[in-house]
Amino acid sequence: MPDPRFFPTAGVQRLVDIAAVAEARFEGDGERLFTGVAPLQTAGPDDVSFLDNRRYADALSESKAGAVVLHPAMAERLPVGCVGLLAAQPNLAFARIALLFHPDPVARAVVHPTAVIAPDAVIGQGVEIGALAVSGARAEIGAGCIIHSHAVVGDGVVLGAGCRIHPHASISHAIAGAGVVLHPGARVGAEGYGFATTAAGEHVTMPQLGRVILGDGVQVGANSTVDRGSHGDTVLGPGTRLDNLVQIGHNVHTGRGCVIVAHAGISGSSVLGDYVVLAAQAGIAGHLTIGSKVRIGAQAGVMNDVPAGTDVIGSPAWPVREFWRSIAYLRKIAQGGRAGAEARDRKADREP
Amino acid sequence: MPDPRFFPTAGVQRLVDIAAVAEARFEGDGERLFTGVAPLQTAGPDDVSFLDNRRYADALSESKAGAVVLHPAMAERLPVGCVGLLAAQPNLAFARIALLFHPDPVARAVVHPTAVIAPDAVIGQGVEIGALAVSGARAEIGAGCIIHSHAVVGDGVVLGAGCRIHPHASISHAIAGAGVVLHPGARVGAEGYGFATTAAGEHVTMPQLGRVILGDGVQVGANSTVDRGSHGDTVLGPGTRLDNLVQIGHNVHTGRGCVIVAHAGISGSSVLGDYVVLAAQAGIAGHLTIGSKVRIGAQAGVMNDVPAGTDVIGSPAWPVREFWRSIAYLRKIAQGGRAGAEARDRKADREP
Amino acid sequence: MPDPRFFPTAGVQRLVDIAAVAEARFEGDGERLFTGVAPLQTAGPDDVSFLDNRRYADALSESKAGAVVLHPAMAERLPVGCVGLLAAQPNLAFARIALLFHPDPVARAVVHPTAVIAPDAVIGQGVEIGALAVSGARAEIGAGCIIHSHAVVGDGVVLGAGCRIHPHASISHAIAGAGVVLHPGARVGAEGYGFATTAAGEHVTMPQLGRVILGDGVQVGANSTVDRGSHGDTVLGPGTRLDNLVQIGHNVHTGRGCVIVAHAGISGSSVLGDYVVLAAQAGIAGHLTIGSKVRIGAQAGVMNDVPAGTDVIGSPAWPVREFWRSIAYLRKIAQGGRAGAEARDRKADREP
Repeated sequence: MPDPRFFPTAGVQRLVDIAAVAEARFEGDGERLFTGVAPLQTAGPDDVSFLDNRRYADALSESKAGAVVLHPAMAERLPVGCVGLLAAQPNLAFARIALLFHPDPVARAVVHPTAVIAPDAVIGQGVEIGALAVSGARAEIGAGCIIHSHAVVGDGVVLGAGCRIHPHASISHAIAGAGVVLHPGARVGAEGYGFATTAAGEHVTMPQLGRVILGDGVQVGANSTVDRGSHGDTVLGPGTRLDNLVQIGHNVHTGRGCVIVAHAGISGSSVLGDYVVLAAQAGIAGHLTIGSKVRIGAQAGVMNDVPAGTDVIGSPAWPVREFWRSIAYLRKIAQGGRAGAEARDRKADREP
Repeated sequence: MPDPRFFPTAGVQRLVDIAAVAEARFEGDGERLFTGVAPLQTAGPDDVSFLDNRRYADALSESKAGAVVLHPAMAERLPVGCVGLLAAQPNLAFARIALLFHPDPVARAVVHPTAVIAPDAVIGQGVEIGALAVSGARAEIGAGCIIHSHAVVGDGVVLGAGCRIHPHASISHAIAGAGVVLHPGARVGAEGYGFATTAAGEHVTMPQLGRVILGDGVQVGANSTVDRGSHGDTVLGPGTRLDNLVQIGHNVHTGRGCVIVAHAGISGSSVLGDYVVLAAQAGIAGHLTIGSKVRIGAQAGVMNDVPAGTDVIGSPAWPVREFWRSIAYLRKIAQGGRAGAEARDRKADREP
Repeated sequence: MPDPRFFPTAGVQRLVDIAAVAEARFEGDGERLFTGVAPLQTAGPDDVSFLDNRRYADALSESKAGAVVLHPAMAERLPVGCVGLLAAQPNLAFARIALLFHPDPVARAVVHPTAVIAPDAVIGQGVEIGALAVSGARAEIGAGCIIHSHAVVGDGVVLGAGCRIHPHASISHAIAGAGVVLHPGARVGAEGYGFATTAAGEHVTMPQLGRVILGDGVQVGANSTVDRGSHGDTVLGPGTRLDNLVQIGHNVHTGRGCVIVAHAGISGSSVLGDYVVLAAQAGIAGHLTIGSKVRIGAQAGVMNDVPAGTDVIGSPAWPVREFWRSIAYLRKIAQGGRAGAEARDRKADREP
């Protein structure tokens, strides 16, 4: 069970209610009560657990969980006495169950006395503001927002309803929709990297006069950075989620629901469609257009536009299939021994 | 026009004054007034805009801007009635115009009552210190500095005149010149990654006894980190600019005006000449010497010294031209069709 | 000598005591006094210096240092009159000497009046808490901890004895052992990147219900991020050290003494053995097992399990030897003579 020091629960739940939020099928007594969620390895008979990766199927067989969310195809692996909660998408079903036991925090309408709120800031109903948080002049903080300790909301910033700004996050020059989450240390609206260089080598700052527009439900991970537009805006579309330590350059636009994984970076003025996935440590050069549902592999380096629906990988990035073919070729060469490679080279030189 | 909630302007400007700061040529009425700057797409007849990338030439034709900064070679693309401000380097010219409308912030000589300033800190004339900022013992903060909310200036740190330390930035064990800018969350002077490992596997910290020396005009991007010297100093030369999420190891030296782009890293004790460009996500191993004006491509991994004036790319890094030749070769192999590749492979299998 | 503004010393030391902590051999007057440590280039006759990299042997010959720690094999390079402190592992010996002059800071039992400490937090003996630091409800802060300005210790967090939490670091949902160090801006315990996506493309947060467990002596570098477990815990084994800007995903486990260099990342649920080295900008995909003493080269991308004791590099990662063989092959192709390559290219242009 989650450590109660950190994770208070909403209390016991009936199996029938659990199955309902999960849209899962089950057989058995719907009135049975469960106290929480837990991993397969540590779950007890009062816990709900889940399996969404075949890799862990052995843990299922040995689990003492009272109920397990899983794909119907895995149902036969359930231990005796364990209730199966069958769902086509077990991770989604389990997320909804976990949220039933551990709902998102709700703002307590309290402003800590050490917070520094500008007199002309507009604080919505029920807003919670933690110790030593700062709200700048004319900022508008929507109803039900939680501003944690040491967060800084800059002058004029607008936060929609129900945003959560975690410790040490800062946001400036930005308009955020509802339900936006900034994780600890996130930096939204900082001055981008814009300058012109004189013939003598002096870098002259280009004033960065745009904003950051965060759609509803956008999340920015811990210590990630989203620069404001240089002119025009930097825009993260609704539901886009940045993992930790991500860099978003000025004037970047993402569509809906993009997924940008840790250490990935998008250079200035590139435009992403909807549901683009940029895996860890990958990068996109500036001024490119990436179509919807493009998936970019880890450590890829994208230097050209990518049409919608394409999967690319490598640095420079190219289609996944060709990338792996080139890797396979190189491995054969390398394992083939020096002699083989050199023979081949000599031949290559002679060949047409 | 830039959002006035975030970007107050210095007021209307005459065309003749605008052209003067930009060192741009124009034809027409020098007394004409302009109210601000804006991108081509949204500029109106009272705005100055600019074009510095041919990619956006179509936007020029359709722009309603009153004046546009651009290269003389593009002048014929100007829409009717739009004043051309002709400059050999349009981005530089436009930067100066934008600074005319939106000059760098000037410190207001105010210390917020919640700031915590050590009694023996030396605060220069006209310094502005924001809410909850901290200045340590014996720190010296030069005239006209702006220390934003939640910034921390450590014991003994020296800041030259006109520095700006943004929210949540911290600086310790450092001597900074004039006009240094630390963006939000920048970490200057933290203990580097130095330790010796015993035969039993215990890591014993090597005390990091050097400083960070920041030349005039150095900028450190959001959430970037500059470790102090292990012994001797870490030095960033005048005008060097780090983008966001950059890592600078202990004892690194950069020359003047180096440009280190997001997610790039320089390992301990490497020395860079002047005007080196390290593109995004690239890395330089430790104890290397990189000559002046070297340009290192995105995601490159530099493992050897690089002579001045060279362009390198790849991981491990090598000269740009040879890198692309090897990529072209691999692509030919991979695209050459499975049949071709397999034929070649079969041949390889038969070879010694 | 280290700048006394930043590095107070513990006072002069006798050569015999210096040699004793270093377990080094020397010849000469054990009563001779030394005032500090310094690099070879700047050391004077009262300083102890060291050489641990042959690259800098010339600096040894010209050094004015009174004593130098070095490997016996280098002893003949000592300048006349300079005492040799001979040690099999000079960097370790020197670390111990530097710690003699500059011991780790000791907590002063002072809580700054601006710190915000929850009434039910449990503060151990001799704890030092800086300006504007925050300790949450029910947090337990062990004896002798130093919580610097602007650090935030979350509700319920447990810190063992002698931890140091630097400015702007935050820790939540975590249990830390003794002597743990969080460098400035480190983020421990933030919500990981966990969500399930509906058919309509909506990302539903998976509540992250695990903790972070930090073993004794763990260090987390500046602006690095360690996500809490999604369920189950994220665990860093005793003595594991993260450099700056490192990302550790949810449920990752590391063994003892792992070394994770700047910009490296480990994706969710991967498990590392003891003493694994992950070099700069390298990444490990999720759900992998990396054996003890594996060394992973800079910028490597690990996509498969790696058996203990193996060295890998490349993206995707493979054994070091084969990687270099493939690189050598590609270089030969690319350099293979401009003439040869161009001939090949021309031919390719004519081909179907």
